[in-house]
Amino acid sequence: MTSTRLATPSARNARYDIDGLMAAIEGIPLVTDPVAVRRRSRDFFWYSPVLNEQLSGKSADLLVVPRDEADVIRVAAACTRRRIPITVRAGGTGNYGQAVPLEGGVLLDVTGLSAVEWHRPGIVRAQAGAKMHDIDAMTRPAGWELRMHPSTKRTATIGGFVAGGSGGIGSVTYGGLREPGNILAARIVTAEEEPRVIELRGDAAQKVNRAYGTTGIITALEMPLAPAWRWIALIITFDDFFEAMRFGYEAALADGVVKKLLTPMIWPVPSNFPALRPYIPDGKSILIAMIAQPSLETFKAILGTRGTITYEEPDDESPNVVPLYEYTWNHTTLHWLKQDRTITYLQCLFPHERVIDSVREMWALFPDEVLPHTEFIRFGGRVTCSALPIVRYRSAERLNEIIALHERHGVLIANPHVFTLEDGSRHKRADADQAGYKAEVDPFGLLNPGKMRSYVPQRA
Amino acid sequence: MTSTRLATPSARNARYDIDGLMAAIEGIPLVTDPVAVRRRSRDFFWYSPVLNEQLSGKSADLLVVPRDEADVIRVAAACTRRRIPITVRAGGTGNYGQAVPLEGGVLLDVTGLSAVEWHRPGIVRAQAGAKMHDIDAMTRPAGWELRMHPSTKRTATIGGFVAGGSGGIGSVTYGGLREPGNILAARIVTAEEEPRVIELRGDAAQKVNRAYGTTGIITALEMPLAPAWRWIALIITFDDFFEAMRFGYEAALADGVVKKLLTPMIWPVPSNFPALRPYIPDGKSILIAMIAQPSLETFKAILGTRGTITYEEPDDESPNVVPLYEYTWNHTTLHWLKQDRTITYLQCLFPHERVIDSVREMWALFPDEVLPHTEFIRFGGRVTCSALPIVRYRSAERLNEIIALHERHGVLIANPHVFTLEDGSRHKRADADQAGYKAEVDPFGLLNPGKMRSYVPQRA
Repeated sequence: MTSTRLATPSARNARYDIDGLMAAIEGIPLVTDPVAVRRRSRDFFWYSPVLNEQLSGKSADLLVVPRDEADVIRVAAACTRRRIPITVRAGGTGNYGQAVPLEGGVLLDVTGLSAVEWHRPGIVRAQAGAKMHDIDAMTRPAGWELRMHPSTKRTATIGGFVAGGSGGIGSVTYGGLREPGNILAARIVTAEEEPRVIELRGDAAQKVNRAYGTTGIITALEMPLAPAWRWIALIITFDDFFEAMRFGYEAALADGVVKKLLTPMIWPVPSNFPALRPYIPDGKSILIAMIAQPSLETFKAILGTRGTITYEEPDDESPNVVPLYEYTWNHTTLHWLKQDRTITYLQCLFPHERVIDSVREMWALFPDEVLPHTEFIRFGGRVTCSALPIVRYRSAERLNEIIALHERHGVLIANPHVFTLEDGSRHKRADADQAGYKAEVDPFGLLNPGKMRSYVPQRA
Repeated sequence: MTSTRLATPSARNARYDIDGLMAAIEGIPLVTDPVAVRRRSRDFFWYSPVLNEQLSGKSADLLVVPRDEADVIRVAAACTRRRIPITVRAGGTGNYGQAVPLEGGVLLDVTGLSAVEWHRPGIVRAQAGAKMHDIDAMTRPAGWELRMHPSTKRTATIGGFVAGGSGGIGSVTYGGLREPGNILAARIVTAEEEPRVIELRGDAAQKVNRAYGTTGIITALEMPLAPAWRWIALIITFDDFFEAMRFGYEAALADGVVKKLLTPMIWPVPSNFPALRPYIPDGKSILIAMIAQPSLETFKAILGTRGTITYEEPDDESPNVVPLYEYTWNHTTLHWLKQDRTITYLQCLFPHERVIDSVREMWALFPDEVLPHTEFIRFGGRVTCSALPIVRYRSAERLNEIIALHERHGVLIANPHVFTLEDGSRHKRADADQAGYKAEVDPFGLLNPGKMRSYVPQRA
């Protein structure tokens, strides 16, 4: 774990010309109340006991809420001229402190940039602060929806999802955000004294993927859309977790079955889902799935008698309904944390050529300490699974030992217990050249400083 | 190569009670003219010099053209009572003699059963004789199309495609017909004295896949539909065939790129496409692709400067337009055969874990004799490629030697130079239990006799 020495709040206030900034951006909504600013300076980093200790005291000096891109440009210019850091936040649903201002300064809340600019068959263009749930609601009547979304879709924004990276519900078909074509374009504002607005298209758009807002302030994104199927959400119970794994793997490999989610998890993980307990008898491992209605018959044929379908309902995206996918990906962890704060989690990527054996190997190493919760995905064109296992937390040292043992056995870990890009994001595309690009768009190193720790500002 | 002793036409006429049959099915359209019957008793088996020699003299005694399923039932009953063979045919676009009556009898032309019974989002149900092109034309206005089709889509029927098996344009995304979910249901009429009508759903429907009409007379099929994208057809030229292969493989693995076709072929294969020569300079290997319009930008970004796009037009399905896909799959072979009848072809399946190396290995073994034309597909959930290489034909012995050398190097061959199921269809699902099922639906062995050579009739 990296330990970084950070400025204390009092030092920050002395350091930045906040009054001058406020005068320069007059007319743009802002919040100065320290309690409110501090509350908005947090995300779900408390999932990690390590991060919780490191980040819990951090806060911005000022919350600024731009109404449009013109406001963003004014704030970027005013901050850059005064060398005040800018940390962008939106829904605040991340888990790695991506939106936590390590060095104070301005917290830029972009949730006001929420318009869907346009959509046509297969493509949507939305402002960074548009909620993913709202984007889907707008495109679904035309038969389209986002290819993938995190389990926090109801509150997460498209900008935050892209800046945080990874994938989610839908990645079993389309892979993660890193796959070519899963981000079509990004529009960013630079942190320069005369900010530029840059359109990054295609591979260049990967420069903002999982960069935590360090490589430009994202104002709009062009994202690919998928056909909006009538999704059926299912819970299937199994006597044996590895039976759920084998079935999930077969279903993931079945290219004739249209699917959005295949999530096996071992008992007792589902014991922490009170609302679902009518569908999950004691002791059963489960698989949660989302399957296109016309593929349901085939999906059940593949299942055969190996498991029991205890829940089968059309996915309901109505405002007051909790969708089944809110029990998968990192929501799985959240449900356990609601009952018991002694656990935490990891993020694993298993080798595609021996995925089930590899999961079994890891489980055998830590049978009661690391409880498998896997997510089938495509990665680089291959079916494999990632995992967000529940870890019974003992100490930071033991956590690092567990990570090292996974890596020694060929399991990649995207460490969710660090707040810098470099330490955490080993799933990331290597060729995006984010550090080099950062020099162009953030010469003073003001964008979310501390998150890209290898970056040395060109001009101090 | 299996050599089977077959009855001569004169023996056939003596053997079957054709007059009694004609009386029993009075009112059902039929053709008795031997020249017309013989013409309809053929398919494209002449692609293979071996099959051409074995099958060219074969003919049915009578062509019967049922107008509906009730007619089919009457014919099945009347034939079974008289122990007269029934060989089903429709578009006649197959290459293995699947519709060639080896033992005479009735040739059952099901092209009259051409109705699309219904379609809804994701599923179509059509009679066996419906042309695939007509099915697409009916479902496209609602935003749907068949998941895959052969290069003969404009004349092939859905029944013939399923009875012939394999896959085609679309298999790069959905795999072949053998994948679970790619045939949802089949309705068949049995060859019994009191024929039954049986609905085979799910995995059971695989019993008619690539069975050449030996396991029941298919009257209707329920097939999955895919979203009907606006497809862009492209020709990309390359200096080096293996550059086309590497690019094609990357594009096939790119789950963020929506695609229907990725077909690399080595020069001089495209020298036989006169109409396309303006787009293909001498000496260039090419890749033909069909890409969803919203994925085109990403597709081009993956290509980079490795190849040159010389043709890029929306796929045009108008009646008098030759679509670009009619230069791929087995149409590639046809275009060469039109210029030069001294060549033939093979059907290969390369191991997915070393697909490019394996293609290169085979090419090195026969650099001028077996010219690579590959087709990227999904097979069992993995990206790999099949191939229909052009083979400069020397003799049946040499052809078998080439096949044996491929197999020795781990390349599966679906031999297109044999007319029986067992010898040809090594790609086929093993668990469909077609032979066992045949005993139930064809106790006297009357359905396309000789094609399932391992079958011994239960009752003679």
